[in-house]
Amino acid sequence: MADILDIAKRRGFFWQSSLIHGGIAGFYDYAHLGTAMKRKWENLWREFFIGLDENFYEIEPSVVMPENVFKASGHLKHFVDPVVKCKKCGTPERADHIMESFLGESFEGLTAEELTKLIKKHNVKCPKCKGSLEKAGVFNMLFPLNVGAGKSVAKAYLTGETAQGVYVNFKLEFDALRRKLPMGIAVIGKAFRNEISPRNAIIRMREFNQAELQIFFDPDTITEHPRFKEIQNYKLLIRPVKNKKSGKVNEILCKDVVSKMKLPKFYVYYMAKAQQFYLDILQIPKKKFRFRELSEEERAFYNKYHFDVEIDLDTLGGFREVAGIHYRTDHDLKGHQEVSGEKMVVNLDGKNILCHVLELSFGVDRNIYALMDISFREEKNRTVLSFPGPVTPIDVGIFPLVNKDRLPEKALEIKNILRGSGLSIFYDDSGSIGRRYRRMDEAGTGLCITIDHQTLKDKTVTVRDRDTMKQIRVKIDKLEKAIKDLIGNDIKFEKAGKPIKPKTSKAS
Amino acid sequence: MADILDIAKRRGFFWQSSLIHGGIAGFYDYAHLGTAMKRKWENLWREFFIGLDENFYEIEPSVVMPENVFKASGHLKHFVDPVVKCKKCGTPERADHIMESFLGESFEGLTAEELTKLIKKHNVKCPKCKGSLEKAGVFNMLFPLNVGAGKSVAKAYLTGETAQGVYVNFKLEFDALRRKLPMGIAVIGKAFRNEISPRNAIIRMREFNQAELQIFFDPDTITEHPRFKEIQNYKLLIRPVKNKKSGKVNEILCKDVVSKMKLPKFYVYYMAKAQQFYLDILQIPKKKFRFRELSEEERAFYNKYHFDVEIDLDTLGGFREVAGIHYRTDHDLKGHQEVSGEKMVVNLDGKNILCHVLELSFGVDRNIYALMDISFREEKNRTVLSFPGPVTPIDVGIFPLVNKDRLPEKALEIKNILRGSGLSIFYDDSGSIGRRYRRMDEAGTGLCITIDHQTLKDKTVTVRDRDTMKQIRVKIDKLEKAIKDLIGNDIKFEKAGKPIKPKTSKAS
Repeated sequence: MADILDIAKRRGFFWQSSLIHGGIAGFYDYAHLGTAMKRKWENLWREFFIGLDENFYEIEPSVVMPENVFKASGHLKHFVDPVVKCKKCGTPERADHIMESFLGESFEGLTAEELTKLIKKHNVKCPKCKGSLEKAGVFNMLFPLNVGAGKSVAKAYLTGETAQGVYVNFKLEFDALRRKLPMGIAVIGKAFRNEISPRNAIIRMREFNQAELQIFFDPDTITEHPRFKEIQNYKLLIRPVKNKKSGKVNEILCKDVVSKMKLPKFYVYYMAKAQQFYLDILQIPKKKFRFRELSEEERAFYNKYHFDVEIDLDTLGGFREVAGIHYRTDHDLKGHQEVSGEKMVVNLDGKNILCHVLELSFGVDRNIYALMDISFREEKNRTVLSFPGPVTPIDVGIFPLVNKDRLPEKALEIKNILRGSGLSIFYDDSGSIGRRYRRMDEAGTGLCITIDHQTLKDKTVTVRDRDTMKQIRVKIDKLEKAIKDLIGNDIKFEKAGKPIKPKTSKAS
Repeated sequence: MADILDIAKRRGFFWQSSLIHGGIAGFYDYAHLGTAMKRKWENLWREFFIGLDENFYEIEPSVVMPENVFKASGHLKHFVDPVVKCKKCGTPERADHIMESFLGESFEGLTAEELTKLIKKHNVKCPKCKGSLEKAGVFNMLFPLNVGAGKSVAKAYLTGETAQGVYVNFKLEFDALRRKLPMGIAVIGKAFRNEISPRNAIIRMREFNQAELQIFFDPDTITEHPRFKEIQNYKLLIRPVKNKKSGKVNEILCKDVVSKMKLPKFYVYYMAKAQQFYLDILQIPKKKFRFRELSEEERAFYNKYHFDVEIDLDTLGGFREVAGIHYRTDHDLKGHQEVSGEKMVVNLDGKNILCHVLELSFGVDRNIYALMDISFREEKNRTVLSFPGPVTPIDVGIFPLVNKDRLPEKALEIKNILRGSGLSIFYDDSGSIGRRYRRMDEAGTGLCITIDHQTLKDKTVTVRDRDTMKQIRVKIDKLEKAIKDLIGNDIKFEKAGKPIKPKTSKAS
């Protein structure tokens, strides 16, 4: 992990926030390369998932929301971490994390009472000072805010998940979008959790980024999806609950997931799409991808089905969650209906429907970290981030071989020619060409184009491939096509994300 | 304004946040059309401004920052609103706003003491209950947060401007970006201000969106810009301080702005670029655009030069600020250097430099509102948002004339053909074709394509223009080009935003 953090800081992917002022644990800033990569990831996600249906759209809700939102969502009651304080040094710690480092297995999801018993049973002490631990309590992770002044102060919170911003807008969007189901509303945005123990850099932060799609549908239609047959013979990579001990990943045809694992087609369809996003678009190696089925104790009580997408990360010692597919039933709309008094039931073709929600939830930062982990390679003379083409922060580096003889001008001319091609380009004219290549390898830049004296004579440039370090000469007028073929970032969305004809019902 | 808010809600541009729970003043959500439009605006801004120099980049800093950041920035001391409470009903109000509605002119920038005197002099009463007013005080607009738990709580704030996230990263980015000046760092993101009186919908919100570019440069080079000669004969539209009374806008050549108004070339260059962004890219009519020079009392004390970009908005009764060009001198880096103890001086070619900052600051939400205001037209039988091509939320609506005879399938086939063209497309098959056109007019959709029975015979479709309502028939295989020509959203960035050779200095 230190290697990743090191390269992240040296090249400008991410680093701790407000570092000159000492920073605060759990806050990171995306620097210029990380920002470029995050933007590419988000655009791919947007294009892929929102493209799955004619009736899927994106919105941007506020992150500050009034107290009743979190009464309705259950966050005020249930959005808590089990926390335990040391009697001697007073340091608060996550009780499950203390047990995890003591016994080497995960205790996430256990209640404070259960953890208190375990701590007593194993006589666990404070990891800092070896003092005795108090009884475990709970700590609410929402950040409270007072909005306004004096008499007119309103109690509010920073949202703990982007999903709430969708639920409060359900009815308004349902009307604006012509009253059709299913309706999908996506948000790519920030969420905030006052974690007791933020850790693993951008894996568990207090301010973090989510990409979530909430699909509202008539629960009576969950057993069907109009395009299921397209994926019925596609194999999902699943580690079911029963394989918890062995960790074995089964390859199961989607149609068998339906018939044998008793999952509904509507749910399995989106599992298939999520897997295709990782394998086909982000190009994660098959053996590093799995769905992990969560047991009843691990799931939130309102999630009827819950499979996490996990990626095997060397720097974190195994599979780690990067996304989740949650069937949240009517939990959300029912909660908001009860607290607000606003009717969330809609009437379609004479039928009253309280929509159920299928949530596709992605941790953007975890995805960025996972891509860095998977792409990291140390070779004899260099460190390389071999990013897949579509998420490479910089597609092409352009260098004049030397900083004279009109080579810089020629290089900038070529950069200008490539402008409008959609390629991200970095120009660098300082340092030896070998050093510039090494820097670009660490930045994960796909190709380096060098302009030399021969360029001025025969209108060709050198194109160097990041992974093989092989160099070829290419005519300037064929450069754009050559680059795109070599990088392979020209994703065909028709394959996986082709828009589909929605099952529409006329408004009544 | 009611018309804009009405159409914004009906069609799905924006509406008050968490409305089912009563909402909180000053928070709005972007719905699906507003989000699409905001994304287009942001992408244009990014492409245009970050494209102005080889050494301009974008980052994404946290919005939660530790207390010392705001000690350094001066926000803890100076980021205050003058507030006055009613002795009788207790309602707090902005003291300058009370004076403004009483006397009909702006009192922004006056101190609490000055406003208290004015309130006494004119015997102004509470606008709500006619009670007497207390003395005006100040109210800090930062939202405080406690991060962590128990003993380890850290005091933090939600940032009041995206700029601070850049300043704390100056040194890290300067090193990662190969130590060159000028260096530009952009942020497109959220900022938060606990306004006493949020108002005018998305014009003055408590959670809002900024697009800011901080350009760090050697103050000794402010009198030059390597590409000044390209804009020296370009005319700026300026309302100087001396024209405050008449409101007259002068058209002045950039070279005359330098020689007569004594503004440095580096500053004037970016004024010209900001104006070109509004006139050429966003296509704001010339007579609705102006730079307003701020007087010394109106400027923040650290802004040596400050011109606001203002747009004339019918619904707000005149010119309103949408952006500002601020020469902030060394105020920011000096402040962070003093509070953090980290040296902000850099050494280039043996010269020690404490960079000065030129800030291009844009209110994203105000820009969206301004575009809606300017595009709004009521005609005899319809309401139209005649958006400029580049910011139209939906480029093309695609409709089957009737919902049978395989016309929907044909329509979706054509939608698929246009996928990958970069065009944003909306499919609608419900309601009469006339009603669908009206809805698209209100959404500001550029063109409507209708698939009818003739389409099946001769492979042509009807293309209807939003503004003229004229219809033409176009062959399907020529559709993409025809659409792009008609919409005119194929911006040529070479014109205004061509990348330039930076004035580089080697690191020492």
